[in-house]
Amino acid sequence: MHDTLAVVGATGAVGRIVLQQLETRDFPYKRLKLLASERSVGQEVTVKGETIKIELLAPGAFKDVDLVIASTPDEVSAEFVPYAVEEGAVVVDESAFWRMDPSVPLIVPEVNPEAIADHKGIIASPNCSTTQMVVALAPLHKACKIKRVVVSTYQATSGAGLAGNVELMTSTQKVLDGETPASKTFQYPIGFNLIPQIGSEKFEGYTSEEMKLVYETRKIMGDDNIQVCPTAVRVPVTIGHSESILVETEQPISVEQARELFGAAPGITVVDDLQGQRYPMPRDCDGKDDVFVGRIRRDISGQGNGIAFWCVSDNLRKGAATNAVQIAELLQQSVATA
Amino acid sequence: MHDTLAVVGATGAVGRIVLQQLETRDFPYKRLKLLASERSVGQEVTVKGETIKIELLAPGAFKDVDLVIASTPDEVSAEFVPYAVEEGAVVVDESAFWRMDPSVPLIVPEVNPEAIADHKGIIASPNCSTTQMVVALAPLHKACKIKRVVVSTYQATSGAGLAGNVELMTSTQKVLDGETPASKTFQYPIGFNLIPQIGSEKFEGYTSEEMKLVYETRKIMGDDNIQVCPTAVRVPVTIGHSESILVETEQPISVEQARELFGAAPGITVVDDLQGQRYPMPRDCDGKDDVFVGRIRRDISGQGNGIAFWCVSDNLRKGAATNAVQIAELLQQSVATA
Repeated sequence: MHDTLAVVGATGAVGRIVLQQLETRDFPYKRLKLLASERSVGQEVTVKGETIKIELLAPGAFKDVDLVIASTPDEVSAEFVPYAVEEGAVVVDESAFWRMDPSVPLIVPEVNPEAIADHKGIIASPNCSTTQMVVALAPLHKACKIKRVVVSTYQATSGAGLAGNVELMTSTQKVLDGETPASKTFQYPIGFNLIPQIGSEKFEGYTSEEMKLVYETRKIMGDDNIQVCPTAVRVPVTIGHSESILVETEQPISVEQARELFGAAPGITVVDDLQGQRYPMPRDCDGKDDVFVGRIRRDISGQGNGIAFWCVSDNLRKGAATNAVQIAELLQQSVATA
Repeated sequence: MHDTLAVVGATGAVGRIVLQQLETRDFPYKRLKLLASERSVGQEVTVKGETIKIELLAPGAFKDVDLVIASTPDEVSAEFVPYAVEEGAVVVDESAFWRMDPSVPLIVPEVNPEAIADHKGIIASPNCSTTQMVVALAPLHKACKIKRVVVSTYQATSGAGLAGNVELMTSTQKVLDGETPASKTFQYPIGFNLIPQIGSEKFEGYTSEEMKLVYETRKIMGDDNIQVCPTAVRVPVTIGHSESILVETEQPISVEQARELFGAAPGITVVDDLQGQRYPMPRDCDGKDDVFVGRIRRDISGQGNGIAFWCVSDNLRKGAATNAVQIAELLQQSVATA
């Protein structure tokens, strides 16, 4: 058991849910410290009935801290994580900054919990769109070895934080009122629109968000031979990322087998009855911790072994806060059994 | 030149744009007749400055008609088209009912204009999501022979007619007002939501909308060997269908070559500059007749020759009204040159 837990970025879209998860999952700690940038310092937040004043994220803040759960922008993470580790804390980091560092395990507890053993003070939690995808891919990979993934995403505005949701709401209301919406968080007005760009160009016309689906997937699944063709699109939905996924496997796989594999896998709820109009949708997954899978069907275009499916998950929960708290739980178990 | 043109379903979402297109494209006719179901009979509509009273769609209505452009539900088309043809008219039909009939040409003028020569009184216009896709696929197929297509759609609510758009608007306003939205046109509330079902189950877990992307594509491109894996999703956008498309070709194809082929093809506008944040979006394509293509990139997952791209088009225009009027223009040319 850790004595002092620090949550960094507690007032953000993900940080708020981290605090909720500490309550709902009854995460054990003796003392909770909340750290944020100057803007939030002095604010009071109530967690598990205790009112806590937010302190400044600065060198020295981690001297008495054992474990950190951090949800901050990449540049903030790049700066504070080294001194947090230096000061003796173990950091579960949700930013993208450390994910591909070879010395940093990138963990989805349902997929590669064992990788946590190698950590050197930093454990990274993957990007939201990657996390839900690898949870769904893992049982198929284990049974039939995935060779290739083609994925098109339908990503919610909360992936860009609270500001993203506010912008969707105001942008939408403007359109309904016959006015011209503006944009600041997103490249263009998102109300009743789609934006086929998340992040900036990273590799051969693919965006940074798209390449996370390539690189992070390989690292988590521990298989650099998995080929991924990603398309990442922002859609006018507040919470819940959706993904249209096609997988090609080495061994043959049937729809029935895929459905059974999904159904038996941890962290997956199968909602799959087209005739009964049952399939995952953002509105049903908002506030849930699982990854939801449906529309499971044979790839009718392939020469080989292929399965197509539809996958939805709350991007603030399994895509971020829930996965980070699960990593912290894993750390506790390893401390407990050490 | 045809003497009498009839437009069937003139008060619907697509029918209204057919009438607009007759004006903008200065489609020649001596007399225009508007036909609709009982509900609309007697309404007056102004086209090219002439006020026309809507008449009842019933046997006998086509006795004096040469050419028909019809936008009606499938069941209405199934009933009236036979007697329209019997009464001597040639029908350009936008419903799904006749599309796969072997005696009915299914035409996208940029792709297979020559097929119109075989018509026996009925010419079908494809489904909205198919039309924009085949316009984009045609130049690639001609140059490099397409073997396989993986497509995920992001389809606007106007695909379900005016009622679809009204439902999106009311559903969205309800959510903004903190109330619970209802649904009638769609299976579930569509405001800030996605619905991964368009149509009903048709084949092995694929919906009717999805299978149109398989069957219609093969028929229009005249190649039954083209394999398609489709996923069709309704999104909270009023106008403009978007598609994330991956093609695999027989011959090698480079990004530069694909961009050139798209750029030289009729009916396509290339908007492709990720660094400059230029790509097709529904809000920019609303009210335009072209098919817009961007995010053109190499398939980084394939062993073979693959190109991924993003394609948007106004589903009421090229996806429906514009294509039908273009077919009518083709018919006129063939009459003129006969």
